[in-house]
Amino acid sequence: MDLKEYVLEKAKEAKNGARSLAKASSDKKNILLIKMAAALEDMAEKLISENKKDIKSAEKKDLSKAIIDRLTLNDKRIKEMSAGLREVAQLPDPVGEITKMWQRPNGMMVGRMRVPIGVIGIIYEARPNVTADATSLCLKAGNSVILRGGSEAINSNKAIVGVLRKVAKDEGIHEGAITYIDIPDRQAIMEMLKLEGIIDLIIPRGGEGLIRTVTENSRIPVLKHYKGVCHVFVDRDADLKMAEDICFNAKVQRPATCNAMETMLVDDKIAAVFLPAMLKRFQDAGVELRGCTKTISLFPDIKSVKEKDYYNEYLDLKLNVRIVGGLEEAMEHIAKYSSAHSDSIVTKDYTKAMQFIKEVDSSAVFINASTRLNDGFQFGLGAEIGISTDKIHARGPMGLEELTCTKFIVFGSGQLRE
Amino acid sequence: MDLKEYVLEKAKEAKNGARSLAKASSDKKNILLIKMAAALEDMAEKLISENKKDIKSAEKKDLSKAIIDRLTLNDKRIKEMSAGLREVAQLPDPVGEITKMWQRPNGMMVGRMRVPIGVIGIIYEARPNVTADATSLCLKAGNSVILRGGSEAINSNKAIVGVLRKVAKDEGIHEGAITYIDIPDRQAIMEMLKLEGIIDLIIPRGGEGLIRTVTENSRIPVLKHYKGVCHVFVDRDADLKMAEDICFNAKVQRPATCNAMETMLVDDKIAAVFLPAMLKRFQDAGVELRGCTKTISLFPDIKSVKEKDYYNEYLDLKLNVRIVGGLEEAMEHIAKYSSAHSDSIVTKDYTKAMQFIKEVDSSAVFINASTRLNDGFQFGLGAEIGISTDKIHARGPMGLEELTCTKFIVFGSGQLRE
Repeated sequence: MDLKEYVLEKAKEAKNGARSLAKASSDKKNILLIKMAAALEDMAEKLISENKKDIKSAEKKDLSKAIIDRLTLNDKRIKEMSAGLREVAQLPDPVGEITKMWQRPNGMMVGRMRVPIGVIGIIYEARPNVTADATSLCLKAGNSVILRGGSEAINSNKAIVGVLRKVAKDEGIHEGAITYIDIPDRQAIMEMLKLEGIIDLIIPRGGEGLIRTVTENSRIPVLKHYKGVCHVFVDRDADLKMAEDICFNAKVQRPATCNAMETMLVDDKIAAVFLPAMLKRFQDAGVELRGCTKTISLFPDIKSVKEKDYYNEYLDLKLNVRIVGGLEEAMEHIAKYSSAHSDSIVTKDYTKAMQFIKEVDSSAVFINASTRLNDGFQFGLGAEIGISTDKIHARGPMGLEELTCTKFIVFGSGQLRE
Repeated sequence: MDLKEYVLEKAKEAKNGARSLAKASSDKKNILLIKMAAALEDMAEKLISENKKDIKSAEKKDLSKAIIDRLTLNDKRIKEMSAGLREVAQLPDPVGEITKMWQRPNGMMVGRMRVPIGVIGIIYEARPNVTADATSLCLKAGNSVILRGGSEAINSNKAIVGVLRKVAKDEGIHEGAITYIDIPDRQAIMEMLKLEGIIDLIIPRGGEGLIRTVTENSRIPVLKHYKGVCHVFVDRDADLKMAEDICFNAKVQRPATCNAMETMLVDDKIAAVFLPAMLKRFQDAGVELRGCTKTISLFPDIKSVKEKDYYNEYLDLKLNVRIVGGLEEAMEHIAKYSSAHSDSIVTKDYTKAMQFIKEVDSSAVFINASTRLNDGFQFGLGAEIGISTDKIHARGPMGLEELTCTKFIVFGSGQLRE
C-alpha cells in the first residue's frame, strides 16, 4: 500500500470512528474519558519505557535540551495527562444543545442544534501529552481525531494511542475514533491536507513554520494562531499603580506564552511619572528593555528599539517600550504591529475605554486587566485546544463549543414553500 | 504593474475600505445602502447601455440563451437590485451585538462582541445582480468586498461598481469598500486566493467547477456549497396526504434550486398505498421518474434508477424513487448519498422523528416540512448570501450574522493572572 492509500485508509477509519462517537451519549463519552485516564496511569511503566526509545534517538540526533524536555514522559506528566482527561469528563457536553429556537408565521419551529464537526486532524510537534489532551477535547465534543505527531515522539505517541484505542474498543466505540498516522515522512501530512470531505477540520499545534506549511497546503479548513504580539497601553488617565501591576504581570508572570505582552505603549503625558518605577521593576526582574527615541531621551541607558522589533514575539524577558501621543496613536500602533491576539488599555476614562474595546480588532480586548488572562480557564470556558487568531469559526480560546458546529432543525406540521 | 502587484494593490485598497466601514454606525451604513439603491435606478440607462456591450460579445461568442438571460440587465432587474439594497438596509445590524456576557470569580466581566470579518472576496460568474446583492450584505455587516465577476459581465459589473463607489465616496466611506478586480485573466483569481492576512474570507458563487477550483487553491477560508442532493423519507407512520403534498412541493415548486428533492425514499410498508397517487401526480406535472427494483416491480413502466443517479443533483423535473425497509435504511441511504444540504422525514411517530432530527447530519433537517424551506427568508434570517454545506463557521443559510465574527471583550478592574 503506498503512502497516499495508507493515509486515505486511515482517514476513512477516522470517519467510521466519528459516526460511532456522534451517536454516543454524554454518559458514554464521560465513562470513556475516565477509563482512558485510569488506563494511562495503569500503563505508565510501558509508556515510560517506550518514551525512553524516543529520548535515546533524540540524544543520538543531538536535539536540544528544550526539545528533549518537552519530549520526556514521567510519572508526574502521565498523572497530569490523566487529570486532564478527568477534567474534560467533568465539562458540560456541548452536543445536542439547541442554542435558539423560534416560530415562523406559518407555524414551523426553526432552531439551531449543536452537533459534532466530524473528523478533526491534529498536526503537532514533539509533545506527547498533546496526544491525550487534544484527543480528550475532540472526543468529548463527539469528534474523532486523526493524529500526526512529530517523528521525535513516535514511540511515545503510538503507545498512548494504543492505550486509548483499547479503552475505546472495550467500551464499544469504533477504534477509528483515535487514529494515528504512523509514517514519519512529511509527505503524509500533505496527503492528509488533501482529504477534504473526509477530514473536516485541521488544527496544527506547534511553531510558526509548521502552521504556515499546513495553512498553505490545506484544502481543509484550518484553525490556528501564528503568534501573539500583545500590547498594553497605559493611558494618561490610568490608575498608575494598577497600570504598573498589569504591565508587570503581562510581561513577567510567564513570558514564554502567546498572551504575554511584547510592547508597552505609554501616553507621553504620564511617561515621566510612570516609567521610572515601572522600568526599574522590569529591570530588577531581569527584563531586557528596548526603548523608542522618546523613551531613550528619558532613560539614556536603555537599548534602542528597531522597527522590526515591534513585529517580534520574544517569548522571553524582553520588552519594547514606546511613548505615544495618546489613544489614537496607540491604536494605530496596535493596528499595524499587533498579531490581533490580546491587547489591553489601562484607563479610568470611560469614553477612551469604550473606544478601545470597540475599535481594537483582536481575539480578546481588555480594559484594566492583564493580557495573560486570555485563556479558556480564565474566561470560564474550561480546557482549550488553543487560542485562535483566525476570524472564521473560532476566535480566541477554543473550548468544546468551538469543536462543534450547528445544524438547523425544523419541527413542521406540513409546511410547504409557497 | 504586473498582475500579482495589481491584485495586491486592490486587496490593500479593500483593506482600507474595511477599516473605514468597521467604524461606520448602523445609520451611516443604512443611508449608504439606500442612496446606492437610488443611484442604481438613476443610472439605469447607463447600466443598460454598458450591459448591451456584454450581451453583444456574448452573442458573438455564441454563448447559450440561458447564459445571455442571466447576463441581461433591464429596468425590472435594476429595480430588483435596488429593492434588495433597501431590504438589507431594513435588517438589524449584527455588528456590536454582545451575544453573551458573564462575570468571573475574580470580578472581571467577559463577553463576546460581534464584529465585522474584514475583507470578503466574492468570486462569481455571469450574473451582474450578484455585484449589488453580495456587496449590500457584506457592507451592512461592516465588511468591504473585493469582487471578481465572470468576464462575460465585465462591462455591466464595472458600471454597477462605479455607481456604488461614487455613493461611498460621497458619503465619506473609503471607496475601497467596493473593490473590483478588473482583469479577465483567470490567474487574477489565483493571486486573490493567496492573499491570506489581507483578504479574510472567500465566498465563491457559481457552478461546482468554479467552487472546486477556488477551494483547492485557496489559502484563505472559503464558505461554499457544492450541490444539493436532498431527500424526503415517507415513513410508514406518515400522514400520507401530508407526505404527498410535501414531496410534490419539494420536487416541483422550483426544481432548479439546491434545496429541491432529488430522491424520494418510501417505507415499503406503505409503498403500495402511497405511491400510485403520488407517482401519477408527479407524472402529470411532467416529472421523469427513476425507480429502484422494488418500485419497478410495482410500476413496470418506470425507468430504472442507476446507483450513480443517487449522487446526482438534477436541478430539473427528474426524481429517483427508492423503497426502503424503514427508518434505518433511509438514514443509511442519506448518510451515503446526501450532500448534507436539506433532508426531511414525514411521520406521525415521535420517536422516529426525534431520531431523524438527531442523527441526520445535514445543514437543515426537517420533520413534516418541505426541503424547499431551507432558505434565509423562510427561516426568518433575512436575505442570505448562499447556503453553506460546510461545517466550519456557517452551516445552512448564511445571513448577516454569518458575515461577522466575535471577539472577546473584558471589562476589568485591575485583574492579573495568578
